[in-house]
Amino acid sequence: MSKRVLICVTGMPGSGKSVVSRALGKLAKRVVSMGDAVREEARRRGLPTDLRTMMELAQRLREERGPAAVAKLVLEMLEDEGTYVIDGVRSLHEIDVFREFGNVIIVAVHASPRTRFSRLSTRGRRDDPKSWEEFVARDMKELGFGIGGVIALADVMVVNEDKSPEEVANEALEAVRRVLSSARCESGGRGQADRGSGEGA
Amino acid sequence: MSKRVLICVTGMPGSGKSVVSRALGKLAKRVVSMGDAVREEARRRGLPTDLRTMMELAQRLREERGPAAVAKLVLEMLEDEGTYVIDGVRSLHEIDVFREFGNVIIVAVHASPRTRFSRLSTRGRRDDPKSWEEFVARDMKELGFGIGGVIALADVMVVNEDKSPEEVANEALEAVRRVLSSARCESGGRGQADRGSGEGA
Repeated sequence: MSKRVLICVTGMPGSGKSVVSRALGKLAKRVVSMGDAVREEARRRGLPTDLRTMMELAQRLREERGPAAVAKLVLEMLEDEGTYVIDGVRSLHEIDVFREFGNVIIVAVHASPRTRFSRLSTRGRRDDPKSWEEFVARDMKELGFGIGGVIALADVMVVNEDKSPEEVANEALEAVRRVLSSARCESGGRGQADRGSGEGA
Repeated sequence: MSKRVLICVTGMPGSGKSVVSRALGKLAKRVVSMGDAVREEARRRGLPTDLRTMMELAQRLREERGPAAVAKLVLEMLEDEGTYVIDGVRSLHEIDVFREFGNVIIVAVHASPRTRFSRLSTRGRRDDPKSWEEFVARDMKELGFGIGGVIALADVMVVNEDKSPEEVANEALEAVRRVLSSARCESGGRGQADRGSGEGA
């Protein structure tokens, strides 16, 4: 395997990405969220850091610097070696950029829209949707970035429907450990973590 | 619930959609595949029915009659009442059309790219990919239709990674039964199967 392993966590709003990213942090040097990178950039530009401004900034960055702009900001935050968890990957453009700089494992966290809506409408973060319409609009925005493609191509799919956070965390950890060890075992270290680079499984 | 329930099965090539669709057939009057509708149309037009021609025809139908063209052909094959399994739904445009004519439950079947490639390259259907490059190209084509959005918004996610077909079939059946019964139990029959219509959960 190459020197860097990037465990890319994706999922729709309210699916439980942060629980999974935190858990996978045990396998990594550091957890870096795509949002952190945008927040950094917002600070550099003297902008507020509420969800709406952040989403607009992420959008603007993509327009200015291409669809993988945020991934590039994240890469600047990483050292040359080690395993990292990248929380909040949103498109295959970003995955492509990450693959250039490390072996990528995509972990998707899934919950049904109904479950996600109920979680988001009760967790009470200021930016969470207040109505079903707002929720659907945010989903559509995420899908517009291409998050569906990342979910569809996940190496590990963690279903977070009726489970406790501990169960989900353990399931994700176990599955990613399996992928990491099978990747390590394969000839010359070429394995699952490599197979997205288009060079054959 | 409305008179028609449409259990829409989606998933990337090699994920195991057909096993799940067949299993869910137990809950339905009939299983109709999106491919069947395209094949019908191919016959009407005097075209061959290999995968390539079928995918091209589906594409052409979408260009001629809009992105939900195949869904509309499927609807013509259904009666006014009853539960149907629709195998091979590929976009949210199709889901929107189905929602107009029934309560929709989206069931996504997921397997990692590595597992799907290994399945497809050993099952030996004439149109299955012969190389990793062909496999990736077909995945990208499917994602181009918007299948990622349908997977991301699934009401039920069935992970088909290390399981036997029987296990997968049973898991899918149990999960869809749960959704159906919770939809039935809710006030006035408005429940999960309705919630995608944008009217609140």
